[in-house]
Amino acid sequence: MELTNLHALSAIEAARLIRQGTISSEQYVGACLARVRETDARIEAWAFLDPDHALAQARAADQYRLSGQPIGPLHGIPVGIKDIIDTADMPTENGSPLHAGRTPSRDAAVVTLLRCAGAVIMGKTVTTEFACGAAGKTRNPHDAAYSPGGSSSGSAAAVAAGMVPLALGSQTGGSTVRPASYCGVYGLKPTRGLIPRHGMSRVAQTLDTVGLFARTLDDVALLLETCVAYDEGEFESSPRAQTAYGTIAADDPPIPPMLGFVKTPHWNRLTDDAKDAFAELVERLGDRVEEVELSSAVEQAWEWHAIIMESEVAVNLSREWDKGRARLSERLRGRIERGRTHPAARYLEALAQIPRLNDGFTELFEQKYDALLTPAATGVAPSGLESTGDPVFCSLWTLCGVPALSVPLMSGANGLPLGAQLVASRHNDGRLLRTARWLVDTLRRA
Amino acid sequence: MELTNLHALSAIEAARLIRQGTISSEQYVGACLARVRETDARIEAWAFLDPDHALAQARAADQYRLSGQPIGPLHGIPVGIKDIIDTADMPTENGSPLHAGRTPSRDAAVVTLLRCAGAVIMGKTVTTEFACGAAGKTRNPHDAAYSPGGSSSGSAAAVAAGMVPLALGSQTGGSTVRPASYCGVYGLKPTRGLIPRHGMSRVAQTLDTVGLFARTLDDVALLLETCVAYDEGEFESSPRAQTAYGTIAADDPPIPPMLGFVKTPHWNRLTDDAKDAFAELVERLGDRVEEVELSSAVEQAWEWHAIIMESEVAVNLSREWDKGRARLSERLRGRIERGRTHPAARYLEALAQIPRLNDGFTELFEQKYDALLTPAATGVAPSGLESTGDPVFCSLWTLCGVPALSVPLMSGANGLPLGAQLVASRHNDGRLLRTARWLVDTLRRA
Repeated sequence: MELTNLHALSAIEAARLIRQGTISSEQYVGACLARVRETDARIEAWAFLDPDHALAQARAADQYRLSGQPIGPLHGIPVGIKDIIDTADMPTENGSPLHAGRTPSRDAAVVTLLRCAGAVIMGKTVTTEFACGAAGKTRNPHDAAYSPGGSSSGSAAAVAAGMVPLALGSQTGGSTVRPASYCGVYGLKPTRGLIPRHGMSRVAQTLDTVGLFARTLDDVALLLETCVAYDEGEFESSPRAQTAYGTIAADDPPIPPMLGFVKTPHWNRLTDDAKDAFAELVERLGDRVEEVELSSAVEQAWEWHAIIMESEVAVNLSREWDKGRARLSERLRGRIERGRTHPAARYLEALAQIPRLNDGFTELFEQKYDALLTPAATGVAPSGLESTGDPVFCSLWTLCGVPALSVPLMSGANGLPLGAQLVASRHNDGRLLRTARWLVDTLRRA
Repeated sequence: MELTNLHALSAIEAARLIRQGTISSEQYVGACLARVRETDARIEAWAFLDPDHALAQARAADQYRLSGQPIGPLHGIPVGIKDIIDTADMPTENGSPLHAGRTPSRDAAVVTLLRCAGAVIMGKTVTTEFACGAAGKTRNPHDAAYSPGGSSSGSAAAVAAGMVPLALGSQTGGSTVRPASYCGVYGLKPTRGLIPRHGMSRVAQTLDTVGLFARTLDDVALLLETCVAYDEGEFESSPRAQTAYGTIAADDPPIPPMLGFVKTPHWNRLTDDAKDAFAELVERLGDRVEEVELSSAVEQAWEWHAIIMESEVAVNLSREWDKGRARLSERLRGRIERGRTHPAARYLEALAQIPRLNDGFTELFEQKYDALLTPAATGVAPSGLESTGDPVFCSLWTLCGVPALSVPLMSGANGLPLGAQLVASRHNDGRLLRTARWLVDTLRRA
C-alpha cells in the first residue's frame, strides 16, 4: 500500500482495508490529518479539530477491531460534522459568536448513528452563521480566491480537499447542493424525514434536512444507509423497512433512465458559461433527456419558501434576537426582521402548498422521468468570501422535501467545478443515486 | 323483549341482541326513528335524516347477518354523524348556507371505519356554522328553552334524547365536552391523532379532534375502539398496536385511583351552583382527590389556543371569506378577521408551547394522578339559542391534545345536567375510561 495517498481513498475502500487489517484506522485518520496540515491553512474548513482526539478515536477503533467483535460499516472512518450538529465531545458553536464555547451535553441523533457505525468524528466544519447568515472563513479548495459555497462550507471543502472522505452538512435553502457544486463533490439532500434532525440547530423546521457530502456515489449511499433512522418526534419521519441504498445505487437501471431537463422560471439567472455547459450536457444525453416545463403552480414556490424560512428563523432565533441582536450579522437581522412581519395566514397558506407541489411532481416522476436534471447553482463559485452564492436552483426542491443530488460533472469557463443537480420524488433516494451513476457512466463512455 | 323502549338500549346491549337474533337491526333502528318522530320536532337535532335510507341500511345489515358472514361490533347499530363529517350517501353542509346541498363523493375515513364495523349511518346532526361560528337550530333535550351546547349540538342532543345510542362530533375548542355536559351524556375527546380526520371539515388542523358521544362508558369505549386507526397523512397519528379500550374500561383499577382537582386560572367564571356542586363532589371523594395547582406556564394557554385556532380558521375558510363573506355570521367573520392579523412568529411560538405543556402534564400524571378532575363547562347550559356556551374549561386540554371526558355526574340549581371533566395524559384514553367508571361507581356506592 502506497501510504502517501491514503487520504484519497474513498470511505468504502478505506473501510474494507481497515476491516481486512491491511491498514489501521490510525493510519487512515493520520493520513487525513496530514492532509489537513498540508491544505487547511489555505482552506480553513474546520471550526474545531483536535488531531489527538481524532487519533484517540481511531486507536480505539483499531483496538475494538482486534478484540474480534463485529464492526460497523464505517469502522475507523473519519467524518466531518457541520458545526450546527451537536457533539458531546467537541464544541458546537453554530457559526455565531453568540454561541462561542457552547459544548452540548449530548450528541445529535445522527452523530450517534455515525458512532454506532464505527465512525471517527473528525471535527466540526465551518458553517455560515446559524446556517443562514454571514459567511464563514472557509475558502474554495480549487481556488482560495473563491467561495466554497454555504452554508455547509467546511464540509464541502474538507471532502473536496481530501481531508475527510465523508461529511455531514444541512440544507434549508441550498446549503448542501450548492457548496457541493462549487467544490466539485457529491452533495445529497435526502428525502426530508429520512435522517433524524434531533440535536441539529433548528433553522426552519419545515425545511431543515441533514445533507451528505462524499467524493463517490458509493460513499454517498453508504453514508445515507448509516444515517437513516426513524424519529417519532419528527413530522415527516415514519417507520420504514431498511433500504440497501448501496446495493440499489450500485445496480444497473433495469431500463435506460429518462431525464427531464428543468430550466425553472429562473433560468435567466444562470451564467453564460453554465448555460453553455448545460446545453452541451443535454446534447450529449441525446434521447435520454427531454426538456420539461414545470406547471405554473411552482412559480410562487420561491416566495413560499422565503415566507416559511423567514417566519421560522425569526422564532427559532428569537432568544439570540432578544439578547444579542448586535452580534448577529446584518444579513441575518434582515431575515429575522422580515420573518417577524409575515402573517400567520400567509405562512399557513405557504405550508399548504408543499403537498400540492409534491402531488404534481409525483405524477411527473411516475409517468415519465427517473429524475429531473437541473442546475445545482447559478454557475461556478462566486469570487471573494462575502457571498456564499445564490440558492435559487435549490429552494424549490428543499420546499418539497424531495431528494436532490449535486453531481460533479462539468466546469465553468475558469475551470472551477460546476454541478448538475438530479432530483427525484420523495423516498426515491436509492433510485436517484442509481440514476446518477448511470448518468456519470454514460457521459464517461460517450 | 319490551319493544316500546328499544331505543333506550345501549349500543352494546343492542348489538348483542342483534347478534343473537333476539331483535333485528330494523327493529332497533325503527325504534330510534320512532323516538326521533316523538322528540325531534322539539329538539331539532338533525341537519339531515332520511328514515327510509336508515331503514334500508338496517335491513341490509339484517340480511347480511342471516347470510352467516362474520359481523362487526357495531352491526346494525345507528350512529349520528356531525354534519362537518363527509358522507357519500347524504349531504354534508358544514352548518353553513354557503355549503347548502353539498354532497361529498366519499365518506370521511371515520365513517368508513363505522361502516366496516357494521354501523347504520343514521343521519347528519346539527353543527354550529363550520363548527366554530353561529349556533344551529338544536335545543337542549332536557329543556328546549336552553342551548344544547356546541358545536356538536345535534350529536349531543340526539344521544341524550335516545334518538341514537352513539354519535360522532368534533372538538377544536370545547365542542364535544361542553355539549355533553349540557345534555347529560358522556362526551369523549380522545387523544388527538388516534382517530383519522380525513374527510372532516377542517377548522384548525392543529386542534381538530373527532369527538364521541354515548350514554354509557362501555359504549364510549366501543365507539373509540371502532374509530381508532392510523393515518399516515396525519402529524400526530402513528402506527400502534390495537388497544382493547372496552376491556380496559371494564376492568377495575389495580389500585384505587387518585384524582387531581384542577380549578384552572378561570375558576371565577364558574357559576355559583357549579362551584357548590364541585365542592360537594370533592368532599364526597375524600382522600381520593386533592387540589392541584397548575404551573404558571399554563396561564397563557388560552391565548395560544386562540392564536392557533384563529390563524388556521382564517386560512381554512379563506375561500368562503373571499367568495361569500356576507353569508358568514358576524361571529365567524370576527374570528377570521382576527386570524388574519396574527403574525406567523406568534403562531409558531404558540405551536411550540404544545409539547412543553404536555411535558409538564406528563410529569404530573406519571407521578401522582390517574386523571385530573375539572369542570366541563362554566355551569349548566345557557338559556336561549344565541350562545352555545363558553369553552373556557376545554381549550387548555384541546390545545394539549390530551384525552378529556365529560362525565354526567351532577346537576345545577335548575336541575339541568352538569358534567365533571376527567383529563388524562396523551394515549391514556383507556385508563381515563377506567378511572371514570371507578368514579361513577364510587359515587354511586357512597
